[in-house]
Amino acid sequence: MVRDEFGLIDYVRSRLSKLGRADTVVGIGDDAAVLDMGLEKDYLLWATDSIVEGRHFNFNIGDRSLIGRKAVGAVMSDIAAMGGYPVHITVDMGIAPYVEMEDVDEILRGMMFLTELFSVDIVGGDTVASDRLYISVGCLGRVEREWLTLRSGARKFDEIWVSGPLGGSIYGRHMSVSPRIPEARFLVQNFRPTAMIDISDGLVADLYHILEESRVVGEIVRDWIPLHKDARSFDEALYMGEDFELLFCLSEEDSRRLEAIGNRLEYRFYRIGKVLERGNPGLYMRDGEAVYPLDKRGFSHF
Amino acid sequence: MVRDEFGLIDYVRSRLSKLGRADTVVGIGDDAAVLDMGLEKDYLLWATDSIVEGRHFNFNIGDRSLIGRKAVGAVMSDIAAMGGYPVHITVDMGIAPYVEMEDVDEILRGMMFLTELFSVDIVGGDTVASDRLYISVGCLGRVEREWLTLRSGARKFDEIWVSGPLGGSIYGRHMSVSPRIPEARFLVQNFRPTAMIDISDGLVADLYHILEESRVVGEIVRDWIPLHKDARSFDEALYMGEDFELLFCLSEEDSRRLEAIGNRLEYRFYRIGKVLERGNPGLYMRDGEAVYPLDKRGFSHF
Repeated sequence: MVRDEFGLIDYVRSRLSKLGRADTVVGIGDDAAVLDMGLEKDYLLWATDSIVEGRHFNFNIGDRSLIGRKAVGAVMSDIAAMGGYPVHITVDMGIAPYVEMEDVDEILRGMMFLTELFSVDIVGGDTVASDRLYISVGCLGRVEREWLTLRSGARKFDEIWVSGPLGGSIYGRHMSVSPRIPEARFLVQNFRPTAMIDISDGLVADLYHILEESRVVGEIVRDWIPLHKDARSFDEALYMGEDFELLFCLSEEDSRRLEAIGNRLEYRFYRIGKVLERGNPGLYMRDGEAVYPLDKRGFSHF
Repeated sequence: MVRDEFGLIDYVRSRLSKLGRADTVVGIGDDAAVLDMGLEKDYLLWATDSIVEGRHFNFNIGDRSLIGRKAVGAVMSDIAAMGGYPVHITVDMGIAPYVEMEDVDEILRGMMFLTELFSVDIVGGDTVASDRLYISVGCLGRVEREWLTLRSGARKFDEIWVSGPLGGSIYGRHMSVSPRIPEARFLVQNFRPTAMIDISDGLVADLYHILEESRVVGEIVRDWIPLHKDARSFDEALYMGEDFELLFCLSEEDSRRLEAIGNRLEYRFYRIGKVLERGNPGLYMRDGEAVYPLDKRGFSHF
């Protein structure tokens, strides 16, 4: 049976009854669910992420704390992509017979590196016996109502940005996730990003998520795409997943402002393209004088 | 390596740094985390539960919708045990190669049986490839601050109650979980349960959780323990897990009130014993004139 994670998520999404609870602002389909629990200023954000040994990480990695760091970092990255910040997490672990207590210690240490960095409490979880090690992390976050940033708000003439160089994460960097929470908070506090996502499936695949949810056509410029030093080819910057950088859109005015103060920032953002027009979602690459369409082919975990 | 789920949870709990966020009212250690997110009247509850094929369910069950029902029912049962009600869930699934789309459909159908019954939205989740099918469900619930019921509040002379007959769940009933949400809500709205838990590890093991957290000694009366018709021995009512009934304590006054209106209820509760005194946690069984100590041995998933 052939399928991919995106296809199955869409399928599950299509099968789920929508009760349309009044407190569900956004359900399945963005980086995190958005819940209106009656807080005066904030929405609650809720994301989950599962990683499975052999698929998303190798147990025989030298430093097993990175397994925990990846599990927690990936889900915190989802919270950042909504403009929010994490507050609490739960950790479910399927413990395989060959996992020793010291391994669990190491994994927890990697989790706590991030939870302590971002003042997050681990408030629950479940441990069960499993043939293979898996970790499923849930993360609750908060975001001020006016700062909530979805995938669906990109508009004509918006400019497209990323928060860091792309490509080559699979050669090791994908394990030492640094969720872009300070960067996301800087952006929503000082600008009004119209759409945002974190790059987990690859630049092109994740940009398509924005373009599709926003119903717009985009263009990226080959020379503007920042290549990570780990990348071994330009294609890796386009199609390789798990960069965990923010990909976002800003109005032309906000883009000029971000450029103007860019050299005073501790963060570095890269403008890589723009939204051309409303209409059937599509993506073009500008390469010198040439312009060609880019299809959606991206990194898939299946 | 020998261990049990309880031991590992305690170990993980002991290893976790306690940041002591002001909004974490109860972290790891009760049926659900209790979060004070700034809602005027309510606390937020958050529970997770993982089930793994071959350990908690058999994939070759006739009706695969029951796999979904169990995954969601078990975590809703945790929310009920806090006195609350569920509002949103997330579903992470590890999909094994032999799982067909129709199986996913069936599993979702079983989940939706419960989510529709209790007006709960499925707002997120993640699907990944896995060697074996596993399902990890997160559940957010709400409880009015004054109705929050922990494991730790049992007092001397409280009486001990269960919400239904026990034993024999493993012969099939453990899959068709009916979380005792209406019963829990009836109890907190009309009485003041001093402690509550859901029976997932077995009556004795879960009663010990209450006794330990409350620092009290209890006694149960053999003749008062309601035996389920599926049970094949009395020991099953004591030590077999996954009954998913509520186990709770009421003051003597509340107990008399519950008995008085008992025959007008749509629910049936059973008084099974009492709290003898404060002190080192312990449990006794009264059997006619004989009284003997019961040790903690209970059902373990490992």
